[in-house]
Parts: sequence; C-alpha cells; structure tokens
Amino acid sequence: MKFKEFKKRVQEELKPFFYPKGIAVIGASRKEYSAGHVIFKLLLENHRKGLLKGKVFGVNIKGGSIFGEKLYKTIEEIPHEVDHAVIVIPADLVPSAMYMCGKKGVKVATIITGGFSEVGRNYLEEEVIRIANKYNIRIIGPNGVGIFDAYSGVDTLFLPTKKEVEGTLEISLPRPPPGFISFLSQSGALGSAVIDYMYGENLGLAKFISWGNKIDVNEAEMLAYLADDEYTRVILMYIEAFKKNGKFVIEIGKEVSKRKPIVVLKGGMTEAGARGTLSHTASMAGNVKLYEVAFKEMGGLLADNLIEFLDMAKALSMQPPARGPNIGIVTNGGGPGILASDYAEKMGFKVPKFSQDTIKELQGYVESGIIPKIATFSNPIDLSGTATDDSYAYATEALLRAKEIDAVIVLALHHPPTVTDAMPKKLINIIKDYHKPVIAIDVGSIGVSLWVRKMFDNSSIPAYPLPVRAIYGMKALIQYGSWLRKNGVLEQYLESWKPPKMTGGI
Amino acid sequence: MKFKEFKKRVQEELKPFFYPKGIAVIGASRKEYSAGHVIFKLLLENHRKGLLKGKVFGVNIKGGSIFGEKLYKTIEEIPHEVDHAVIVIPADLVPSAMYMCGKKGVKVATIITGGFSEVGRNYLEEEVIRIANKYNIRIIGPNGVGIFDAYSGVDTLFLPTKKEVEGTLEISLPRPPPGFISFLSQSGALGSAVIDYMYGENLGLAKFISWGNKIDVNEAEMLAYLADDEYTRVILMYIEAFKKNGKFVIEIGKEVSKRKPIVVLKGGMTEAGARGTLSHTASMAGNVKLYEVAFKEMGGLLADNLIEFLDMAKALSMQPPARGPNIGIVTNGGGPGILASDYAEKMGFKVPKFSQDTIKELQGYVESGIIPKIATFSNPIDLSGTATDDSYAYATEALLRAKEIDAVIVLALHHPPTVTDAMPKKLINIIKDYHKPVIAIDVGSIGVSLWVRKMFDNSSIPAYPLPVRAIYGMKALIQYGSWLRKNGVLEQYLESWKPPKMTGGI
Repeated sequence: MKFKEFKKRVQEELKPFFYPKGIAVIGASRKEYSAGHVIFKLLLENHRKGLLKGKVFGVNIKGGSIFGEKLYKTIEEIPHEVDHAVIVIPADLVPSAMYMCGKKGVKVATIITGGFSEVGRNYLEEEVIRIANKYNIRIIGPNGVGIFDAYSGVDTLFLPTKKEVEGTLEISLPRPPPGFISFLSQSGALGSAVIDYMYGENLGLAKFISWGNKIDVNEAEMLAYLADDEYTRVILMYIEAFKKNGKFVIEIGKEVSKRKPIVVLKGGMTEAGARGTLSHTASMAGNVKLYEVAFKEMGGLLADNLIEFLDMAKALSMQPPARGPNIGIVTNGGGPGILASDYAEKMGFKVPKFSQDTIKELQGYVESGIIPKIATFSNPIDLSGTATDDSYAYATEALLRAKEIDAVIVLALHHPPTVTDAMPKKLINIIKDYHKPVIAIDVGSIGVSLWVRKMFDNSSIPAYPLPVRAIYGMKALIQYGSWLRKNGVLEQYLESWKPPKMTGGI
Repeated sequence: MKFKEFKKRVQEELKPFFYPKGIAVIGASRKEYSAGHVIFKLLLENHRKGLLKGKVFGVNIKGGSIFGEKLYKTIEEIPHEVDHAVIVIPADLVPSAMYMCGKKGVKVATIITGGFSEVGRNYLEEEVIRIANKYNIRIIGPNGVGIFDAYSGVDTLFLPTKKEVEGTLEISLPRPPPGFISFLSQSGALGSAVIDYMYGENLGLAKFISWGNKIDVNEAEMLAYLADDEYTRVILMYIEAFKKNGKFVIEIGKEVSKRKPIVVLKGGMTEAGARGTLSHTASMAGNVKLYEVAFKEMGGLLADNLIEFLDMAKALSMQPPARGPNIGIVTNGGGPGILASDYAEKMGFKVPKFSQDTIKELQGYVESGIIPKIATFSNPIDLSGTATDDSYAYATEALLRAKEIDAVIVLALHHPPTVTDAMPKKLINIIKDYHKPVIAIDVGSIGVSLWVRKMFDNSSIPAYPLPVRAIYGMKALIQYGSWLRKNGVLEQYLESWKPPKMTGGI
C-alpha cells in the first residue's frame, strides 16, 4: 500500500528532527537575544533537565565557550554522533556548513537563517538543496522559526522567552503545556503568536513546525509523520499556498484525515490577503475556490479565523466526532441558550425538537421534583435560574440517551445560588459513560467560572466561555464525523476512540 | 421638538432609578444568598463606602434588623424620603406593596420578583400597572435582575458575588470597573454572564439594565435617557423582541444613534432560536428580516455574536468613527497581517493599495534606515521581523497622514527582540494628534502581551489579542461613521469628538 510505505519512509527519515541522538547548533552565539544564543540555551536547558535526551553541541567558527560548554569550530570536530543540525549562520555560509554536515553524517537540518529565495537569492537555496540531496539530509526551512516539540524538548523558537518591561523581566513567548495539538505553520510570526495565545487558553501543544521557505520537508510528509505520532490527536495547518505539490498533499491528507482530524486556516482568501502572501512568502495564493475544493477533498476542516481554528482544535483533541448534526442544549440561562441555538442553526446544524420519549423522561423529572416546574423543553431545555446540580445531571443524561440527538451542549451558568461546585463532577461522571460528544459552556472570566471550565477541561470535556465559541468546537466534531462517515470509517473510528489522558493542558 | 421633549421627560422621570434620594429594599432578608439579602447588602455597602449617595432602608414584614440596620415593617414607616423601591417579595404581595409605595411617594420601582405574565399570571401584572399609573410610579421589571450603575452605586444584581468552591470562597459575579459602555438586556442571565465576561476583558460598565417582562420602562425611554448620560459613550442592547412599541423605539433610536452608537444583538434569529424566545420571555421573535431592517433604520449596528458585540463596544467607546471603509495595516508579522486583510475584505471593507505619495514617504524611511530594507508596502505594510519601535512610529504616522486611508490597524507583535517596551508609548504619542481611528493588535496571553495591550487600552487605543477581533472593532467604527454621514452629521460629530478619560476600565 502506497500510503503505508510513504508513511514508513518519512517516519524513519524525519525522526531525528524530533528525537535527535545528537543535536548541534551551528551558529551558537554569545550575543544575547541572537537566534544562535537563544536556541543553544533552550536546547541545553532542555537537555540538562532531562527532557531532551540527545546530547547538545554548540558550533561557532570562533570557538570559545558559553554556558560552560565548549564551542566547536566546525561540526566535524564534535566527538559524538550528530544527526540533527540547527543552522543559524548567515545565508551565504549555509552551503559550506551543509557540506560539513554531510561529511559528519547529519540526517536532518533545521535551517533558521533567512536571506534565500524570499530575497531573490534562489541560487543559494539551490546549492543547499544540491548538497542536501547528495548527503541525504532532510531540511525544515530555511527562513522559519523551526521546531517546538513539547515532549522531546527540541525547541528552536529563537524569539526571546522573556523581555524587559519597565525594568522588569516579563514572559514574552511562553511555551504551552504538553498537549495533543500539533501545528504546521507557513508563517513563523503567526506560529509564535498563536503559541503565545494558546498558553492563555490552556491549550497544550504536541509539535509545532514553522516551514519558512519549505524547500524540502513538505506538508505531505509532515502529515504522514504525524499520522502515527502518539501525542498528536489533531493537526492544525496555517497555509498561504502549496508549493507545486498540492495534488500529492491532498492525496496524503486524505489518508491522514481518516485517522486524525486536520484543521486548515488559509491566508490570502481575499484580494488584499493574496497580495500579502505574494510579498510575504512569495506565494501565489491562487484561486480561493480551488483551494477550498482541495482542502475539502483531503478532509480538511476549514476554519474561518483564529478563534475558530483553536476552538475547533480544542474540541477535536478532547471529544469524539458526532454521528450527525443534531444538537441538544441544556441551559439555566434563557438568553445564552437562545444564542447557542442561533449560532448552531446559522452554521447549518440542527437544534431539533425532542422526541415524545425524551420529553416524557424530562417531565418525569419535573414530577419527581428534580427539574423545576417552570423548565421548558423545546430544545434548548431551559431549566430556569432555579436549576440545581441534579436538574443538570438528569437533563444531560436524558440528552445523552436521546436517539434524536447526536451531540450535547451543557450550558451551565455558575451564577445562580442553586448551582454549586458539585455540578461539574456530577456531569463528568455521567458523560464519561456515553460515546456522544459533549461540550460545556460557562460564561465568565474569574474565580468560579475559571474553576468550572478547568474542571471540565481536565476531564476532557472542552469548556468555552461564550456560546458562539462552543458552536465553533461543535462544528469541528460534526464536520469530522460527517467526513469519516463519507469514508465509511465512522463507526470503526468511534469504536476505538478513547479520551485523551489529560495532563493539565490539552 | 418632539425628541427633545421626550428626552427631557424621561430624564426627569427615570433619574431616581440611578440617583435615588432614598432607596428601600422591600423584602430585605436575613436569609443568606436570597435576593433580598444580597441586594440589601450590596446597596448598604455602596452607601457606607460613599458611592451610593441616597440613604438605604430595609423593609421586612417581620421587622427586626440585619447588618446593624433596623428593618421597617412597611415602607410607610420609613422616616425619610424614599423615591426608589426595590421589590423582592412574592409576586402576589407586589400589588399591595406597590400601593404602599404610592402612598409613600415613591417615584420608581425595580421589581425583581418573577411569577407574573411569564407564568400566565397576567392579572397580577395588570394590577401592578394599574397602581403604578395611579401613583405615577415608573417600573423596571418585573422578572429581571434589575440595575447596576457603576458610578452611582445602585446595584440590584442579586446573584451571589462569591461562592464556595472546594471549601474556598471564590468570585462568582464580579463587577466590572466604571467605564463607558451601557448595556440594556432582555435576558437577566445573559446580562449577568456578560458582566462577568466583561470583567476579564477589562471592559468597563456605566449602566446595566435588565428589563425582565418590561411592563413599563421600555427601550425608547432608556435610549433617550442614556442619550445625555455623561458616562455612556456606547449603548449595547440584547433584544429578543420588541413589545408592541417597535415603531416608537426605532423613531427614538434613530435620534439617539446620531449622538451615540447603539450596538444590537438579537436573540432568536433562527427557527430554533425563535422557539427559545417564545418559552423564554414569551416573545415572538418575529420575522428576522423585518427586525434587521428595523435595527438598520434606527442606526443600530448589528453584532453577529457576543465576541463581536463586546469588541464593537470596546472600539466605539474609545475611538472616533471612520470617514470611510479604507483600512491601512502596518505589521511585523506577515501571516497575521494577511489574516487581518482577509477578515477586513470578507466583512466588506477595503485594504487598498497605497498612493504614490504614501509609498514615497515610506521608501524615504527605508533610505534613512528607519524602516528595514526588506519591508514591503502593498498594504499591509510588512515591516518584517526586524522592525524597530521607530519603524512602527514612522510607518503608522505615514498611514495617519495618508489621504487614501480612513482607519489604521497597528499589528505590533511584541515577540521580535527589536520591538521594545518603548513601542506603545511612541505610538500613543503620535496617534493622539490625529482624529483618525486606530486599533492595535498584539497576539498573546501573558506577560509582555498583556502589558502592551493594557498600555494601548489605557490610552484609549483599543487593543485586541487576535486579528479577527480587531476587525470586529473596526467594523463598528466604519459602520457608525457611515451612519453618521448618511444623516449628515459625521463632520460635526468628529469635530466635537473627544477621547474618553480612561480610568482603568473602559
């Protein structure tokens, strides 16, 4: 099988990018804030704390030492196997460095350096490719921010981690906790900015790759690599344009997306945006419609903006796909429930009326005093402001049992006095017995609302602070379920689906 | 002039809601977490700290005392003028309480109590209206959460301000700082949830009013009242349906929106949503298209969702409206700049190419070494990752001067080492000399990014954490400018426009 073989090959070839036996920073520098300084420091620290298993070496033509480590004048002098080179020297010195990497037996190179085809020096890029081909070196870059792997400790994000603000050092580029989202970005700036943003959303990362000029390792290969990566449950792609190989990416993407969801954000969807991509990564953003068709063909779930992009990733990394578009909503806030219904239907999903069976069950809970008398059952179930933790537990379980409902939104505002801190646990215990996707909403920004959302998140029930954002998450679960069904693998996927082992982030 | 007289009348009649000389809580209760308990406590605290000027009295049929205050058995016993009564007793006792309020000379009543027309007891509501008419008492409610005024200290939000979470008291319903946004909500639950959310977004509130069944004071009156409220710079309305008086609201809204922007979020825009409004506030959500036309006619700026709703409010409360739809963007991140352009054009605005004059000016800065050589000027201006604080300052000023540009987005990622903590101040100093709207973006969630956004916010330049959200803000400024122009008052509006005096929130 073609995909299987391709996958096997790239998984062998690309492995040293993430699990190097020895990693050398060519251009390790004493100059603070310089890329070579920051990267060498990050890798050394990760090695010293036991996260990065491979040994770390610094190469600097001037020799000397930094952080108590000797700097080698060339990579060839390093008395240890080096399979991964991170290159941060001026562009015109990169070809000869690549030559020495070849001699040393380096398998992969992350080239951070800019100043190649993006400024018209195509000949330099071609020379690098020629040498890489000769010595079988795979390349990520040049002109990107490289790699961040939360599990293996490979980290080349060279932007300052801290910065001075009015005399105090403040965090400038945080690292999200280890999680289940991997992110491939054609824009390094967007990548690092999103990583910063993800930190605040408590979204965990598995791997991040910034392609830059993307002269070698491409989308098809990284998708195939991530297909079996144990930590990656969902793949995010920011893309401005394919480079020639669009058809092949689609072919491979189609196979990968049967195993793991791929969420795509395309830059350059309008005239002004496309003009931007041309000057940014020399990409012809091309015909927008063609791209949309291509992404759909490969099972890519299209995000409209960054909020949606990350909200989709969160839901996909935590919950199973939905069997259909029918959403059941249970709420104690009339207005927020109405807004959730509105967004769901605007996005093309259904918030259908309940079956007689479901209504009968709910009315039974009213009779036994569990659900308030003034509750209404038109979907949303509006439990009213006097709903208790038990009202939620019983109503939610009714929706999980309801045959007419494919996915459930629990909109549990924490504000009324009748909702207590026992609510999240009660719901979590019920939800875990059903393989039907559930998303939680609690609107708020401090104290109780943060705690409630974290309780849900930590039990792999994605919680959102606003109704519209929960619908973004739901969109991903419904669309991914629909893609799997179309490919005849939905039931099989759901059968083997397991919740992630939450570790703080996702 | 009809509007002027109407405005004068309501400003006199409604004043005691916000500036009572004496305020009595009918139903002040010793029972913790009960509405009567929470409200009496809030008002007393605000009075004791000098925020609420009027005296606060508790009324409880059983007498006694609480918080060191005597509880009066009836309102008539209170030996002081009472012009505002907050009523939190069972619905069937409200008519007689209203009668006593009339005898006491009460001018306005905030009726929190539910159990009227929303549960079919229309006769009780009619009796309340009859008595109110007889004694000229104006009513907000019943069946709402009432009023929050950040400046005068009137606060009837009876949901617990703190709650126990795993044995510790945590904030459950924070109060945003005093600001310039007033919010009229047909849903109490939505209102309180949004207030909680606003706190985290550092959005300040002026007044919040939850209508509930809206039996007396209506949208037209509150809009007219807020038209001259010194703290209100933008009015938010969450509405499910008008009650009969739609035409009049539109007529008044049209006058108010020439003075202050009104942002509308409509619940029940889809079949499922409309079904919800019927059971929620017994509202016929009605023909969606008709509502859209009506809101447009009154100059209401329509928000699609809660993110947009608040992002629009933020921009409108801080920046002047735009003269046209042409946005200039300056960035140091190619990808984020492209996304901002995409959203702007998707929303119907323009990110036009620059004039020769503008390009010439920018090229001059390249020649003098202020802007990096690799910068591109196709709009967005992509200053590249090596842009300095000065690159930003000069490029931004070029856009503020550019005749072809009506509004500016400064997308200043803080991550590159060349951007320092001097950047926000430099920009703020330049921007304040132009009456052209400017919005800032810095993507991130912690440390430096929070500080950068706060610096901008505190100088009344609204800063957003994601490109799409900045475009939501820009949408409001462009659409409001277009509405003012259509009414022939744009230039006059801009001439008298002054930035708000920022006090921490907005």
